Amino acid sequence: MIIQPIIDLVAICARKGIKNVILSPGSRCAPISIAFARHPEIHCRSISDERSAAFVALGIAQQLKKPVVLVCTSGTAALNYAPAIAEAYFQQIPLIVITADRPPEWIDQWDGQTIRQKNIYGRHVKDDFDFPDDFSHKDKVWHAHRITNEAINTASDYPKGPVHINIPLREPFYPEQQEQFDYSHPIPIIDKLGNAPILSNESIAQLANNLGRFHRILIVPGQQSPDEHTLALLNLLAKKQKVVVVSDTISNMQSEETVTFHDQLLPISEHALLAPDLVISFGKSIISKPLKNFLRSSGADHWHIQPAGYSPDTYQGLNKIIHTSPTAFLELLIQSNISSDLDFYNRWHESDKKIKTALQQGLEKADFGEWKAIYHVLQQLPQQSKLHLANSMAVRYVNFLGARPQEIICNRGTSGIDGSNSTAVGCALTTKEYVTLITGDMAFFYDRNAFWHNYTVNNLRIILLNNHAGGIFRIINGPSQQPELEEFFETKQQLNAENLAKDFDFDYTPVKTENELNDGLTVFYSPSIRPKIIEVFSDSAKNTAILSRVKAALKEFMDI
Amino acid sequence: MIIQPIIDLVAICARKGIKNVILSPGSRCAPISIAFARHPEIHCRSISDERSAAFVALGIAQQLKKPVVLVCTSGTAALNYAPAIAEAYFQQIPLIVITADRPPEWIDQWDGQTIRQKNIYGRHVKDDFDFPDDFSHKDKVWHAHRITNEAINTASDYPKGPVHINIPLREPFYPEQQEQFDYSHPIPIIDKLGNAPILSNESIAQLANNLGRFHRILIVPGQQSPDEHTLALLNLLAKKQKVVVVSDTISNMQSEETVTFHDQLLPISEHALLAPDLVISFGKSIISKPLKNFLRSSGADHWHIQPAGYSPDTYQGLNKIIHTSPTAFLELLIQSNISSDLDFYNRWHESDKKIKTALQQGLEKADFGEWKAIYHVLQQLPQQSKLHLANSMAVRYVNFLGARPQEIICNRGTSGIDGSNSTAVGCALTTKEYVTLITGDMAFFYDRNAFWHNYTVNNLRIILLNNHAGGIFRIINGPSQQPELEEFFETKQQLNAENLAKDFDFDYTPVKTENELNDGLTVFYSPSIRPKIIEVFSDSAKNTAILSRVKAALKEFMDI
Repeated sequence: MIIQPIIDLVAICARKGIKNVILSPGSRCAPISIAFARHPEIHCRSISDERSAAFVALGIAQQLKKPVVLVCTSGTAALNYAPAIAEAYFQQIPLIVITADRPPEWIDQWDGQTIRQKNIYGRHVKDDFDFPDDFSHKDKVWHAHRITNEAINTASDYPKGPVHINIPLREPFYPEQQEQFDYSHPIPIIDKLGNAPILSNESIAQLANNLGRFHRILIVPGQQSPDEHTLALLNLLAKKQKVVVVSDTISNMQSEETVTFHDQLLPISEHALLAPDLVISFGKSIISKPLKNFLRSSGADHWHIQPAGYSPDTYQGLNKIIHTSPTAFLELLIQSNISSDLDFYNRWHESDKKIKTALQQGLEKADFGEWKAIYHVLQQLPQQSKLHLANSMAVRYVNFLGARPQEIICNRGTSGIDGSNSTAVGCALTTKEYVTLITGDMAFFYDRNAFWHNYTVNNLRIILLNNHAGGIFRIINGPSQQPELEEFFETKQQLNAENLAKDFDFDYTPVKTENELNDGLTVFYSPSIRPKIIEVFSDSAKNTAILSRVKAALKEFMDI
Repeated sequence: MIIQPIIDLVAICARKGIKNVILSPGSRCAPISIAFARHPEIHCRSISDERSAAFVALGIAQQLKKPVVLVCTSGTAALNYAPAIAEAYFQQIPLIVITADRPPEWIDQWDGQTIRQKNIYGRHVKDDFDFPDDFSHKDKVWHAHRITNEAINTASDYPKGPVHINIPLREPFYPEQQEQFDYSHPIPIIDKLGNAPILSNESIAQLANNLGRFHRILIVPGQQSPDEHTLALLNLLAKKQKVVVVSDTISNMQSEETVTFHDQLLPISEHALLAPDLVISFGKSIISKPLKNFLRSSGADHWHIQPAGYSPDTYQGLNKIIHTSPTAFLELLIQSNISSDLDFYNRWHESDKKIKTALQQGLEKADFGEWKAIYHVLQQLPQQSKLHLANSMAVRYVNFLGARPQEIICNRGTSGIDGSNSTAVGCALTTKEYVTLITGDMAFFYDRNAFWHNYTVNNLRIILLNNHAGGIFRIINGPSQQPELEEFFETKQQLNAENLAKDFDFDYTPVKTENELNDGLTVFYSPSIRPKIIEVFSDSAKNTAILSRVKAALKEFMDI
């Protein structure tokens, strides 16, 4: 028999709008898994490698912006979730992580699959709940209901994030043959109505007062999901030349009005001429190291806008935290009297345009390698599609190439290479649009279990940049000088994706030249019953040389 | 420049006898990796998937019984170590886990690859150390030396286990071109001399006094490494009919004198006739669920022998914890006057012999399936070799089959399926003997990144039992009755190892019949420059039926 509080947990999840559950097989968790699997309104999928399972859940929740439930058995299964949970925490993605456990009296008695699961995710969950292990007192039932409501509300509150419910269970784990589950048993539902983070009149007056002091305002949006309204406001501000907007690819706030070649521009420009007196940020992190360094040494004031919660001081100059929505703040800015320094505006935009032209010319002339491969792929991307980028080089290369209309997704909460395939698979499960993943060989083979399940992701397209190594270590200066480069940094690896494509039934096209790539791309975005991989082979040392040559040419061009 | 305290850390490790380091590539950890890589007496290997890297380190330390060092970069890399660390904690295997980190001021500023690494392994490490991030005061240098000594001493103390050193590092991460590392810089070494856990005269007298009360003593050794002296003492005690020794396969304490068919025997015997009045245990956990249940309901006294530390109450009857070595205790037992109940002794041994004969007959007649495959493989195992068993069915099947002379290794600290390939790879790196891994398809493909590195393990032999599912879920009663069996419990999976064998350059032999297996086995244990896999295909439902039929035949035989 499955105990009613477990049925109730599932019923509360369903009533509070949860639709997607990723299960990983186990016996201790069977009551929870079966209760989710039998609920008519919940879609369960089974993924065996818990590390992948958690990143798939993250990829779904990232798109839906609603909690996805994970269920695993006791023991190290729970620990395999940990990388994705940390990523979800810092990327503010809602997950309800349910781990089955032995009852407390059996912890530390050396029974099988028993570890110490209380608070196992440490400071990488928003909250951690211990489900009751006994329901003989009626308050225990109330407590179980309370925990479930609270966990879902906490995961969904701004900033969203993962929560953990540890559930001790005793045998029997399986229902009787004729057992019916009662999902309509009376359960308390605690709704939570959010408030609008509207600034007080005093705060608005203070801002209006302060804004007059600034003439060189730089807006730097951090990582966030696409939002047309926010982008329209940024475009308007930039068009009116009130501010300069510098936007990384992961900000999803790129347009013709925003500066997007800052990664190339900043290292070869005179910083004093581009220096802001006020930096305004919202969203999460940025990728561009030149931009970070530039902002850190700028001496400018820094205002960070977010509705609530903790704000970091990423640029070491934070002096105002403004608890409102970015759109509310940008509307305020539009209405404000800003006397902006037009030279500042023009210098940024002229340099940006110059780089754009020069880079295009440089790349057209450059030898074929991974950068040029990405350049071609981006030209073929369907307008209405999603682009997943793996750490570490794929996302940097795309960031070098300017504005994109597609949604850009990348695990920059913790910037790991460990779950990019699985996250893209999760995304592909939520949409009929094409989902393209651009990845390097290290990230790709690290997370190859992403494809080890029985679900169709025929809208997934993978561009695998295989240089048989962690190419970034040759590109950054330090390791490329060391005798340990190849064994301990680049870590030469021999795999290609041909056999993997057979294992998981992907269409597979290996390419070594520009022509082969362009041939491959002509049919890449045609419908298929299978996902597709184009594997672009390149040489790590040659890629590094191309990058240096194009950058040198840019510098020359800019100096003229 | 690499700071001297990092060079000193490596020098202290070397001076305290550490020889093996597993590095995973990263930039933040570069100073530590390079300092280890350049030490003349330390052998470094690079493994990119940190989950595998940690299990490989565990596999090495399991054999050497000395600490192995792990080094990874900041961020989720550290979390990928967590499953192996929990296994090491409960299996009492010494690991020095070194994670590079950002300095404290950069935590929570949304910079890349930054999570909250302090105490990240929670209660699954013996201790957790924060390395200084600044050495301007000379006491900080002393503190760094102190931490390194303390970490190694703690990992090596009984019970051994993993410790964590988190090391915040600032740029530069790479040495200058001509930089020389001074490993002979003066460093303090803190040796630790262990004591012998010798019982006091009072304790010895009390035991002598107590022992007279017992006539049906059952010794149950838990998981441990082979030890000839201990086994000789057990054999002597059993031969003298003073005690009955019941030994699981993972105890490495099996012989002709010990009972080893308890898994088959207990479910079909009358428990009252076999009931002990005293259970004596030492070592760690056991596998056999029938034995656990039998002991838990026996009502017998239970004495647990171990040199020091926490003792669990696995059989719910613990009433004496004896802090001495198993050998010292067994010698005491040999000298003691035990008037044992010979009927008790005979019933156990006669039943055990009867099962042995019946099982052999039953298996010879049985259809070919995974059980019979294991039966054949075990007959071909070289006497001097090591046998790794994956969770969950492989180890159970072997436990059904009686005494083995080879060392048996299995991750029963947490009984996960997540690292058995990698652990076997670690073992294979420590020996020239053959290392055979018997595994199911779920465990095997879960941990396929075990082979993703550039090191030769040509002494590795893998028997892969592929029933395309988690077969245990069909064998245990509950899930086999559920409509969710195939999707959410067994989790049907389509892979076979043919492509993996190509990817990682293994000899590969697929077999479907008894003859094919026996053909394959004739050349399996011949030297090769490649590791070898025999993949045994079987049907999950048929395996279950065979198991039931053989068990039913045993019962019939015993009832006669």
